[in-house]
Amino acid sequence: MGITLGPNQYGKAEVRLVTVDRSSAVHRIKDLTVSTALRGELSATHLRGDNEGVLATDTQKNTVYAFAKQAPVGEIEEFGLRLARHFTGSFENITGARILIDEHGWDRIPVQGKPHEHAFSRSGDEKRTTAVTVRGERAWVVSGLRDLVVLKSTGSEFHGFPRDEYTTLAETDDRILATAVTARWRYRSLDVDWAKSFAEARRIMLETFASLHSFSLQQTLYAMGEAVLKERPEVCEVRLSLPNKHHFAVDLSPFGLPNDNEVFHAADRPYGLIEGTVLRDDAEDPGPAWD
Amino acid sequence: MGITLGPNQYGKAEVRLVTVDRSSAVHRIKDLTVSTALRGELSATHLRGDNEGVLATDTQKNTVYAFAKQAPVGEIEEFGLRLARHFTGSFENITGARILIDEHGWDRIPVQGKPHEHAFSRSGDEKRTTAVTVRGERAWVVSGLRDLVVLKSTGSEFHGFPRDEYTTLAETDDRILATAVTARWRYRSLDVDWAKSFAEARRIMLETFASLHSFSLQQTLYAMGEAVLKERPEVCEVRLSLPNKHHFAVDLSPFGLPNDNEVFHAADRPYGLIEGTVLRDDAEDPGPAWD
Amino acid sequence: MGITLGPNQYGKAEVRLVTVDRSSAVHRIKDLTVSTALRGELSATHLRGDNEGVLATDTQKNTVYAFAKQAPVGEIEEFGLRLARHFTGSFENITGARILIDEHGWDRIPVQGKPHEHAFSRSGDEKRTTAVTVRGERAWVVSGLRDLVVLKSTGSEFHGFPRDEYTTLAETDDRILATAVTARWRYRSLDVDWAKSFAEARRIMLETFASLHSFSLQQTLYAMGEAVLKERPEVCEVRLSLPNKHHFAVDLSPFGLPNDNEVFHAADRPYGLIEGTVLRDDAEDPGPAWD
Amino acid sequence: MGITLGPNQYGKAEVRLVTVDRSSAVHRIKDLTVSTALRGELSATHLRGDNEGVLATDTQKNTVYAFAKQAPVGEIEEFGLRLARHFTGSFENITGARILIDEHGWDRIPVQGKPHEHAFSRSGDEKRTTAVTVRGERAWVVSGLRDLVVLKSTGSEFHGFPRDEYTTLAETDDRILATAVTARWRYRSLDVDWAKSFAEARRIMLETFASLHSFSLQQTLYAMGEAVLKERPEVCEVRLSLPNKHHFAVDLSPFGLPNDNEVFHAADRPYGLIEGTVLRDDAEDPGPAWD
Repeated sequence: MGITLGPNQYGKAEVRLVTVDRSSAVHRIKDLTVSTALRGELSATHLRGDNEGVLATDTQKNTVYAFAKQAPVGEIEEFGLRLARHFTGSFENITGARILIDEHGWDRIPVQGKPHEHAFSRSGDEKRTTAVTVRGERAWVVSGLRDLVVLKSTGSEFHGFPRDEYTTLAETDDRILATAVTARWRYRSLDVDWAKSFAEARRIMLETFASLHSFSLQQTLYAMGEAVLKERPEVCEVRLSLPNKHHFAVDLSPFGLPNDNEVFHAADRPYGLIEGTVLRDDAEDPGPAWD
Repeated sequence: MGITLGPNQYGKAEVRLVTVDRSSAVHRIKDLTVSTALRGELSATHLRGDNEGVLATDTQKNTVYAFAKQAPVGEIEEFGLRLARHFTGSFENITGARILIDEHGWDRIPVQGKPHEHAFSRSGDEKRTTAVTVRGERAWVVSGLRDLVVLKSTGSEFHGFPRDEYTTLAETDDRILATAVTARWRYRSLDVDWAKSFAEARRIMLETFASLHSFSLQQTLYAMGEAVLKERPEVCEVRLSLPNKHHFAVDLSPFGLPNDNEVFHAADRPYGLIEGTVLRDDAEDPGPAWD
Repeated sequence: MGITLGPNQYGKAEVRLVTVDRSSAVHRIKDLTVSTALRGELSATHLRGDNEGVLATDTQKNTVYAFAKQAPVGEIEEFGLRLARHFTGSFENITGARILIDEHGWDRIPVQGKPHEHAFSRSGDEKRTTAVTVRGERAWVVSGLRDLVVLKSTGSEFHGFPRDEYTTLAETDDRILATAVTARWRYRSLDVDWAKSFAEARRIMLETFASLHSFSLQQTLYAMGEAVLKERPEVCEVRLSLPNKHHFAVDLSPFGLPNDNEVFHAADRPYGLIEGTVLRDDAEDPGPAWD
Repeated sequence: MGITLGPNQYGKAEVRLVTVDRSSAVHRIKDLTVSTALRGELSATHLRGDNEGVLATDTQKNTVYAFAKQAPVGEIEEFGLRLARHFTGSFENITGARILIDEHGWDRIPVQGKPHEHAFSRSGDEKRTTAVTVRGERAWVVSGLRDLVVLKSTGSEFHGFPRDEYTTLAETDDRILATAVTARWRYRSLDVDWAKSFAEARRIMLETFASLHSFSLQQTLYAMGEAVLKERPEVCEVRLSLPNKHHFAVDLSPFGLPNDNEVFHAADRPYGLIEGTVLRDDAEDPGPAWD
């Protein structure tokens, strides 16, 4: 009765790295949460506790900090690629690496109408994300965003769904549609203007969410992904996860009041959850890009 | 051996109210979390489970929703006062009320450069807050903000502190100073332009944080409160709670690298916590404003 | 127009201290979260950034760790008193201290039916708490617990409450009553068997919650506090905060099904919140015990 | 340039279901968080907003509640299978379903030494979990647990790892090993005593964690999975995710104190993260069991 070690990885999760570019009086800051994971031939430590091939997670953390000094961090995709290639290139048994980075935004504080040189306020909860995967000589980049919370106060309908014995939901031709966007998109190659591509994908998704008259959150999801693919040739696949943050119109009739979609209860749980993929017909096999 | 009921209150916490003003095609939304608490003669329910004087918390919730329809919500201070006075005016045994409201911000999504009429994105984590307290005929308003995260990448020193046998901290003339501002300010009266006063207090605190060359977070705290009091005559007291979100310069010397305040570890816990009050000499006794 | 510094304090929050007593092969562990706050004459740092009287929060953290080695931590109340008195006794301008400690529980993992000597599993989310306050020569101790989640599946009614124009809640003679207990009790003196007093207060509150046929959560709250005061002479005041974690019987009638309090939706928000104090008639003035 | 809909699913997430079995005076409660997701031919709604094949997530929620009344919930694996087969059997276009259930534990409150009939306290944060996947006629069950926090105060070493230019970690032959276990195990078939299998897998993993003298968390991970597979023939694969919750011995030498692994700082972030799979050589292909 054989028992085997299957897929595995290990690393340091959530290294909180903040860098300050002080090359001019106008400081620039980067605020990242970096997670590293290494893959390869690691059976010795699993089976016998022999750590000869285990680059310590503490060392991985140190490497993140040291690399942030040795060269400018740059875009998170670049930083992830640098780290991943270092790890896979340094140890024979480490044949794969996966680097996850979240970037947290900061705005300059305006003082008397002018952006301050070295004082900042946090932009919000939204994160720009990347997942860089290296296996042997190849590399894949999946970038995205999380916690972008959006809401339409009209322009959303939901009807025509089937009614079985457990269906009580009324059809509606006007509802609030709200969600917290998690989007990830896979790049065709590594030859990308990462900052511009991110900014454009984000803009396209926001504009599509706002502009599309929606008959279902699924339709909105597909349209958001499709619009990115149509405008951004460097992207070959988009995956979206959209919780339906329900806003229920409160029944005010017991108090003799109408409620023409003016007063809502924002519910916590349960919530709808719509997940989907939009991809090009000719998208290459993703390999380990999403794992 | 007598045992007595002491101070008590009860209510509905965290009613999630979203309203849409549809009076024009350009929708306006309000997103509030409202907590109500009632005070008064409530010994019957505590001692005997006699609920004759207990306005159900479910009714309090209904009242929040109904009031949001019966008249425009307006500024959160106004809405809090309406609710508090309703509760204290309706039931003889309810002689006090305390309404806490958090307001969550939304921005219009820009579509082709123009703000959309009915599509919004969440501004961030920061909340505008108010605490309205009514006791009998009198009312007090304490407004503020929470979760405003700010950071200075220079312009902050910390030295000259005493060194006892447990002191290891090095003195520094250049450090990152970061905090998540919780500020609350007490108004002298109810005759206030709430929206303007909030916007100005926020602006003043941000500008002070940014501009002051800081020798301690306590100094920054006092300066922020003092600046509000100097510019806003309608405010008589400011209370601030400032966690010192430590950013530690990483020691890169083991890797042969300098670190001139460029690479930092953003720590979670523990954190410094600085709390203080700045008030006018002639500030009236706060009564129950802060309870 | 004078502006003054009002009440203030500063310290290190949430120092995560774990100690292992290795004096025998049967290890004992303590898992604490300690927050220190110092009070006194601190205007120099607030007004001028002069830190001569500011014992660094980093030093406070070091002191917590060093004290945990210099003598056994003991009960959290004792550890809090040691720390508070050290701080107030060491620096002339520090005349007050407040130490908050949460204790997290661990159970021994049973192996073949026997508790293991050095392997543990976390007991749950409940915390034992203390707040020790020292001002000059005097000290106050308020102990308690948090996040003790309890539920009665019957034995709870709610009716007889007034009905105004916003009341829709049905009366009920059978409902689920669930809450997350936050309890704090003030001790008359410092001459207390802390461990036993905690265990007994906890037991008394749990037994009262379970046994009392409840007509309102207020009645349950008062009974819990009163029972502690009746049985524990060392306690002079109990404060309780009890969120009413609503469990709503689901309306199954659209599906032709009855629901005799068998199927419930556990709601997140909003929730009722009942807060109250039970105290002895002859309880001494609390001074700063609760601040 | 073709663009296509790829894999997708939708459902209702985190339905909070509490049931009370009142068939005797000794009540029994079940506290579940249920998430449903449906898969199949759903292109009409994605591409055109045509919801003819979209069983509303609200209906899915209703179904969860109704099913909890129509028959006893039973073990979570059974309830998941009932729900999944209902959804796939009812609508032609719904060919797959995935049901995730977390079970939250409750203990009876002891009153005068006897477990109470209808009063309970929450057992802790740990959840028993299941993921039931149905595709066409076939079904897969993956069960597990989350948030089981364990710690060994000795019996753990870490040395022999490679040292590169970024390595500073000292080798140790005695450290605290702590983790929050997330374990999931795949069953060979559906003919399982779910409750017993869960209890035994949990016991085996806890005993292994406690008993194994560990040279790396990877070794502990593998041993935990292997032990389950050795003793439980109904399980064919185990996946574990073990964050290394670092406890760092505090350097007390600046205070002239030794620290023989007695005083630790429990760190939040970053943390090591060890993930791995242990499986039988003859394990059948998992199909969509893990997706």
